[in-house]
Amino acid sequence: MNIPQIPKGFRDFLPQKMSVRKRIISLMTDVFESYGFAPLDTPCLEYAETLEGKYGEEGEKLIYKFEDRGGRNVALRYDLTIPLCRVVAAYPELSKPFKRYQIAPVWRADKPQKGRFREFYQCDIDIVGTDSVYADGELLAITDTVLKKLGFDNFIIRINNRKVMNAFALNSGLAAEAVTPFLRSLDKLDKIGAEGVLKDLRDAGLLPPSLEKSLSEFILTGSADADSLSKMAAIAGATDTGAAGMAEMEKIRETLQACGVSESNYRFDFSLARGLDYYTGPVFETIVTEPKIGSITGGGRYDNLIGLFSRTPVPATGSSFGLERLVTVMEEKMSAGNTAGSTEVLVTCFDEALMAENLRLASMLRSAGIRTEVYFKKTKLKKQLSYAANRGIGLVVIMGPDEVNDNRVTLRNMVSGTQETVLQNKMTAKIQSMLSAK
Amino acid sequence: MNIPQIPKGFRDFLPQKMSVRKRIISLMTDVFESYGFAPLDTPCLEYAETLEGKYGEEGEKLIYKFEDRGGRNVALRYDLTIPLCRVVAAYPELSKPFKRYQIAPVWRADKPQKGRFREFYQCDIDIVGTDSVYADGELLAITDTVLKKLGFDNFIIRINNRKVMNAFALNSGLAAEAVTPFLRSLDKLDKIGAEGVLKDLRDAGLLPPSLEKSLSEFILTGSADADSLSKMAAIAGATDTGAAGMAEMEKIRETLQACGVSESNYRFDFSLARGLDYYTGPVFETIVTEPKIGSITGGGRYDNLIGLFSRTPVPATGSSFGLERLVTVMEEKMSAGNTAGSTEVLVTCFDEALMAENLRLASMLRSAGIRTEVYFKKTKLKKQLSYAANRGIGLVVIMGPDEVNDNRVTLRNMVSGTQETVLQNKMTAKIQSMLSAK
Repeated sequence: MNIPQIPKGFRDFLPQKMSVRKRIISLMTDVFESYGFAPLDTPCLEYAETLEGKYGEEGEKLIYKFEDRGGRNVALRYDLTIPLCRVVAAYPELSKPFKRYQIAPVWRADKPQKGRFREFYQCDIDIVGTDSVYADGELLAITDTVLKKLGFDNFIIRINNRKVMNAFALNSGLAAEAVTPFLRSLDKLDKIGAEGVLKDLRDAGLLPPSLEKSLSEFILTGSADADSLSKMAAIAGATDTGAAGMAEMEKIRETLQACGVSESNYRFDFSLARGLDYYTGPVFETIVTEPKIGSITGGGRYDNLIGLFSRTPVPATGSSFGLERLVTVMEEKMSAGNTAGSTEVLVTCFDEALMAENLRLASMLRSAGIRTEVYFKKTKLKKQLSYAANRGIGLVVIMGPDEVNDNRVTLRNMVSGTQETVLQNKMTAKIQSMLSAK
Repeated sequence: MNIPQIPKGFRDFLPQKMSVRKRIISLMTDVFESYGFAPLDTPCLEYAETLEGKYGEEGEKLIYKFEDRGGRNVALRYDLTIPLCRVVAAYPELSKPFKRYQIAPVWRADKPQKGRFREFYQCDIDIVGTDSVYADGELLAITDTVLKKLGFDNFIIRINNRKVMNAFALNSGLAAEAVTPFLRSLDKLDKIGAEGVLKDLRDAGLLPPSLEKSLSEFILTGSADADSLSKMAAIAGATDTGAAGMAEMEKIRETLQACGVSESNYRFDFSLARGLDYYTGPVFETIVTEPKIGSITGGGRYDNLIGLFSRTPVPATGSSFGLERLVTVMEEKMSAGNTAGSTEVLVTCFDEALMAENLRLASMLRSAGIRTEVYFKKTKLKKQLSYAANRGIGLVVIMGPDEVNDNRVTLRNMVSGTQETVLQNKMTAKIQSMLSAK
C-alpha cells in the first residue's frame, strides 16, 4: 500500500479552501481586466539557463532544477517575471504597451515554515514597452482597487525609487560598486532594525558621516514627510538621475490622486529597498496593517531585464500579489455562509425505480440555472438529509410514490426544517423564490 | 544573451489563445458546478512512488521524475486521477459521495507531435464513494451538456463495460490471465483495424473459434445494435458478473434518456477497450465526428484504485476532458469578434499635462464596469488609434485642451470611424449605450 502523502511545503486544496482561492482570483481577474490587462500563460518548466543568474545568490539556490530524459537542464518556474521577459523577447510582434496578468503557481526549494510553501501562487500584473511612470502609478492604483474590493481598508503602499536611492548613495560618498551592498543592508531593516543596518554598513566600511546622518534623520525612520522629501531632493536631486527619480515619485502621487487612492493608503518611504538587484526606477510594496499580515504585494520597474533575452531593450514595470497571505485572511472573513458555486438543491432518492423521475427533475432545475445534485442510492432519508447538511445544501427535494402519482414534490428547507408540497410544474419557480429569499 | 526559448512540447499562451482557453474552462466549470461538483487542487509535484506502478509499462516511462535537493524522489503529476485517489485516502473525513472537478496541467515526457504536448491540461470530473451506476451515467450527461454548450452537435459517447467484456472473454474460452492482453489487442482497433486485431490475437494464441466468430459478428463492427446486445447478453450474461454489467449498461441508458441526451449522441460499443488496466465497470469515451477531431473525453469506473492508498476500498468513477483538442476547434469557432474580457475603451493622451484628467475619466468608466485603458504617453493620435485598432478596442476617448475647457470629451467609434463630442457628465451613459448597441 502507498502512503497517501505529499512532499513537505506542498499542499492539497480541498473544496472549501478552493472556493476562497477561486473567489479572490476571480475578483483580481475582473479588476485586472477592467484596467485592460490580458491573460498570459507560460510553461511550468523552463530551460534552467532561462532562470539562472536572475535571482541573486540566495534565490539561485532555491530553483528546482533537474535533467530531463533527453539530458536537457530544465527548471520549475521560480517566478512569473522572467518567463514574461522571455515571452516579450520571443514575440516581438506583441503590440506595446503590453499589459498582461498571470496567476499561476511558482516553485522554490525554500525551507517550509508557517506561511511559506515550496509551491505557491503569484498574481502578477506587468506593463511592458513603456517607460512612462504613469504605468507604475497605475499598478499601484490597481493594488488599491483589489484590496478595497477584498474588504481591506488598512493597508499602506510604500513607494521608493531606485534612481533616487542610487543618486543619494553616490552623492553621500559611496562608490558605484557600493550602492548594491548599501541597498542590501537597507533591505534588512525589518529584520535587524535601524541600529542593525547602521552596524552592518559600518562593519562593511560603507558608512561615511553624511550617509549616517541622513539615514538616521530621514531614511531609517520610514515614512517620508515633506521635510524628508526636501532633504532627499537636496542630496539626490543634485544629479540628473536623482532629480528624475524625484520627479517620478511626484508623478506617481499625481496618478494615485487622480485614481482616487486615499492618502492614508500610500506613502513615500526611502527605507524601502526591495531585495532584487534588477530594479531601475520606482519600487513598491504593500503592507496590510489590520489585520497584521505584512507584505502582500511587491514590485518595481525593471527596464534592463528584457534586454537579457533580446537585442532590443524593452522598458517594463510590474507588481506581484502573494495569494497565500490574502487567502489566510479571506478564509476568516468569508468563513460561514460562503456557498458561492456550491450545490443549492439535493434531489433525494426514495426508490431507485423513481430514479428517471429524479434525474428529470434535476435536469429541469439545472436548466433554470439552479445547481442541483441527485442522490444516487436508496438509503434512509435521514442519511440523505445529513449528507445535504454536511455539504451545506439548503434545499432538498423529496419525491415518493404518492408525490409521483399526484405530480407533486415535497420541498424541505434544511435551515428552518420546514417542508411543503408543490406541484411539479411549480417546483422550479418555487425553488427560485426560496433561493432568492435567502 | 539568453535565447528566449522553451523546451519542446511546452507552450506559451498569448492573450488571444488564453481567452479561448479561459472561456472553455469557465463554461465547463459552470456546468460541473451545476451538477454539484466542487473544485479540488493538488500539488504539481508528487512523491514518485505515488505515481509509480499505476499507468502501465508505457505510461511509466513518460513520468517526469527527478531527485530534489533533499534526495527525495519526486515526479510531476501525470494525470489527475491518482492524485485524487491519494487525496481521498488521506482525508477520510470528506463526505461521500465526493464529487470533485479539477482543471489543471499534467506532464508526460512523450514524443512531441502535432496535437500532442508534454504539458497539457486535463479537466476531470469524478464521483467517489458510490458504486451506483447512475453516477457513471451522470458523468456522461455532463459530457453531453458541456459539448452542447460549446456548440458541438455531432459527437458520440461510446459506452462499454469491463464486467461485460471480462465475462465475455472468459465465456468465450480465454483464461483469466488472457483477459487483459485480449483487451489490449482490442484497444488497438483504431490503429490496426479489425484484421489487425484478429491477427494480433491469433499470433498470441488468444483466438478460440467462438471468440473469433463473436468479434467478427458484433464486436469489431463498432456500434452495438439490439441484435448485438442480445448476442452479448447470451454470452456474457451467462455468468453473474456479465449479467450485472449488462444491467449497468441499461441503467446508463435510462440515465441518459432521463437527462435528455439524444440517442444520436451515444451508443453502446463492445469494441471500446480503453487502455488502462484499472477500470472495473463502465468505460466510455467521446468522439467528435464533425469537425473530425477524434476522442475528447475518456474515463470509466475504477473501484479498486483508491484501495492502493487506503485500507478501506472506495468505489469511484471519473471522466476526463482533453482541453487541447477542444481549444483547437473552438479557436476557429470563436475567431473574430471574440472580445470577452478585453478592453472596451481607450482614453488617449493628448498632452501629459492632462494626464490627471485622463486618469480620472478612466476611473469613472471602470467604476461603471467598463474595461478601460489609459494611453500613458503623448504620441501622435494616429499611433494611439492604431494601438486601439490592434488591440481590438472599439471606442476611444479623446480629450484636448478645448474639450477640457468645455467639460467635454470626443468619442470615436473605431469600427465606423465616426466621432462625436459629449459633456463629461454624460460620457459614461453615452459609452454604455454605445457598447450595448454593438
